[in-house]
Amino acid sequence: MRVLAKDIARAARENPEEDVEVFGWVHRIRDMGGVTFVVVRDRSGIVQLVLGNKPNITLESVVSARGKPALNEKAPSGAELRVVKLTCLSRAEQDIPYRVNGDINKIGVEAILDNRILSIRNPKIQAIFHIQSTIIQAFAAYLRSQDFTEIKTSKLVGSGTEGGTELFAVDYFDRKVYLAQSPQFYKEVMVASGMERVFEIAPAYRAEKHDTPRHLNEYVSMDVEMGFIESEKDLIELEKGLLAYIFEQVALKNDAELKLWNAAVPSADMVAQSPTIGYEAAVKLASAESAKAGGARIFDITPEAERYLCEWSKCKYGSDLVFVNEFPRRYRPFYTYPLDASRTMSFDALFRGLEITTGGRRQHDYQAFLNVLPKFGLKAENFDNYLSLLKYGCPPHGGFAVGCERLTARILGVSNVKEASLFPRDRKRVEP
Amino acid sequence: MRVLAKDIARAARENPEEDVEVFGWVHRIRDMGGVTFVVVRDRSGIVQLVLGNKPNITLESVVSARGKPALNEKAPSGAELRVVKLTCLSRAEQDIPYRVNGDINKIGVEAILDNRILSIRNPKIQAIFHIQSTIIQAFAAYLRSQDFTEIKTSKLVGSGTEGGTELFAVDYFDRKVYLAQSPQFYKEVMVASGMERVFEIAPAYRAEKHDTPRHLNEYVSMDVEMGFIESEKDLIELEKGLLAYIFEQVALKNDAELKLWNAAVPSADMVAQSPTIGYEAAVKLASAESAKAGGARIFDITPEAERYLCEWSKCKYGSDLVFVNEFPRRYRPFYTYPLDASRTMSFDALFRGLEITTGGRRQHDYQAFLNVLPKFGLKAENFDNYLSLLKYGCPPHGGFAVGCERLTARILGVSNVKEASLFPRDRKRVEP
Repeated sequence: MRVLAKDIARAARENPEEDVEVFGWVHRIRDMGGVTFVVVRDRSGIVQLVLGNKPNITLESVVSARGKPALNEKAPSGAELRVVKLTCLSRAEQDIPYRVNGDINKIGVEAILDNRILSIRNPKIQAIFHIQSTIIQAFAAYLRSQDFTEIKTSKLVGSGTEGGTELFAVDYFDRKVYLAQSPQFYKEVMVASGMERVFEIAPAYRAEKHDTPRHLNEYVSMDVEMGFIESEKDLIELEKGLLAYIFEQVALKNDAELKLWNAAVPSADMVAQSPTIGYEAAVKLASAESAKAGGARIFDITPEAERYLCEWSKCKYGSDLVFVNEFPRRYRPFYTYPLDASRTMSFDALFRGLEITTGGRRQHDYQAFLNVLPKFGLKAENFDNYLSLLKYGCPPHGGFAVGCERLTARILGVSNVKEASLFPRDRKRVEP
Repeated sequence: MRVLAKDIARAARENPEEDVEVFGWVHRIRDMGGVTFVVVRDRSGIVQLVLGNKPNITLESVVSARGKPALNEKAPSGAELRVVKLTCLSRAEQDIPYRVNGDINKIGVEAILDNRILSIRNPKIQAIFHIQSTIIQAFAAYLRSQDFTEIKTSKLVGSGTEGGTELFAVDYFDRKVYLAQSPQFYKEVMVASGMERVFEIAPAYRAEKHDTPRHLNEYVSMDVEMGFIESEKDLIELEKGLLAYIFEQVALKNDAELKLWNAAVPSADMVAQSPTIGYEAAVKLASAESAKAGGARIFDITPEAERYLCEWSKCKYGSDLVFVNEFPRRYRPFYTYPLDASRTMSFDALFRGLEITTGGRRQHDYQAFLNVLPKFGLKAENFDNYLSLLKYGCPPHGGFAVGCERLTARILGVSNVKEASLFPRDRKRVEP
């Protein structure tokens, strides 16, 4: 009977006389002369095998081992398997180009990503994606508990919602289509359809040429849209509940992974205390913080400003999270709902120094939408679909998107967002 | 306080004297002279408003209505709202090109899809996607309960796993990449990484030119991959448990939607009784059934054969589901694990006359993989990534994919799979 690494100690306590089997990957081999310790990884963790003589086996080979479980305080999981029979199911060749059990702090991001097929085997690297799996699950579960319906919309669009820049073109039979930058239009359609509350977890594409630790050309967008809201403040409240639940689930399910990264998630109280600050005040505050630190004046919510604002929130409110709202009209898409002549009902969420969410209320009024288009240099004839959406009954609504890789990275303190994407795509990287 | 349509009867019973508010879309207006009934849709269902005089309102407008709830056996949900104040939040223009409250049986698929922004408001059409949301949730929940981890992999690939045909090309900066046909390679990487059990729910792309009621050029692929299996039979067992759980959840959560379609899901017992039949026997059986019905001989698992096999399974085993396994090598991808010289450890699942799943065990042996490539006219140098995956320790493994739209369509008896895609893409359709 197969026993997972995490259950070896229990098996040793409960049935020490019963033979069990362990399946996994050879993580480490330590020949002590007369006795050899082989550490094996499986999906649940690591377990130590004890063998009488040195086996003919290589690192990363897949093995099955039969033997008796025995408690041993010195073993990684408090127990070990005393092996009677070791079988190699798949032998790893010796020319392995990447050392899986090495210290990832000594390996650069590029080397990790170039060797993704092997580097992803490293437990600390793999931990990133166990956390990500929990984030995805918790995001969906919380929204379902709030009566949201999960949707799946097309990623191939005839043209870009936001005006057609920074789109990847696709050869689609005898025409060009584009990879969707966001499901914005579709989630609005579904809210206006009467579904009212929808979410989607799906890839999104940005053909941006810059290569920074904050950007991916393909990322997992966790999108929310909701009808019958008054302002972006309703969305901020929703996101607070959502993030608190995600953090709670990660703490509950990924204790081992958090420990590997020496990381902790914010408490629900901390999330509840997160401040919301208007754009203008936020820029002033960031500028003042910059001046204190001997830095230059700040004129916008730059990456530097995001870091200052998070430090301020941590210091003053004890929270890793801060919301900035009321962005000026010029910084937001044309369909953002106005607060007044210059400001919009929009917001960003900043978490541990990084923007993880952009959102806002949308213009739902047909005539107001028509009036705003020329101010952004846009033509009504390019927005037929949007206009049909608004023309035949559309409630006040809004929504936001959480960048899955960014949230994952900031939970663990991973410095480059690419490391939080299983198979990241950037300007140069399309492999593996 | 807002009350949802589904809760009006309860409000009428519990607090008949308290004013409540209903928000929603005007679904029907019936002027009885002196009294007007306005049926309103919200995310939970429909509710009847009663007004003393005919309101100045149009079909599909978004309204809020304040009044007292009252029981009324003749009203759609057993209760109605006696309106004191009706407010129009968004007026629908009169030139609406599609009648939302019409009988969808009288409207062709093309008209429904051409008017998707409005047709999706129809409760029976929208029901399809409430079911789909449950399918997605149940798929993930069941696999998580079996220790699977959810992954998100890139949809932009340097080349096609299956040999490069039928791929959509993307202009990716200064080169071409392709939209992934499946996450096949990536899910195998994750199994071999030590995650062992993974699943993904994501779009997949097929640049197939044919336009049939069975095909989409973009669909939601629900993928599973699992390590340490013996044969495709382990996968069939997994899929039986998975489908039984999905059906159970749909029955539990979507009773109203199933009723709209006069549909029912198979019971867990029915799924457990589903037969598995080898390819050769299946072809013979379909041919015999065809002969009985006066049809032509059948030489392969054609769409017609799928229907015959499902009828046979229903008749003999009382099941809507049948598994066909042991497909000949020539019909399966090169990486499928051999059963013997001519057959493979592969299977399809057929459900109510339609193939909803293809899967199988994969070749995990490096040398065997190298040996098989030339037999398919493939060159090792084009499979560098695959070879690194197999060369450094890869367990026996396999998996399958369930077509989300196909499963949705067959649950409800929707005849064209495009109707089970929110914004379907086919050769001609890229809008909305």
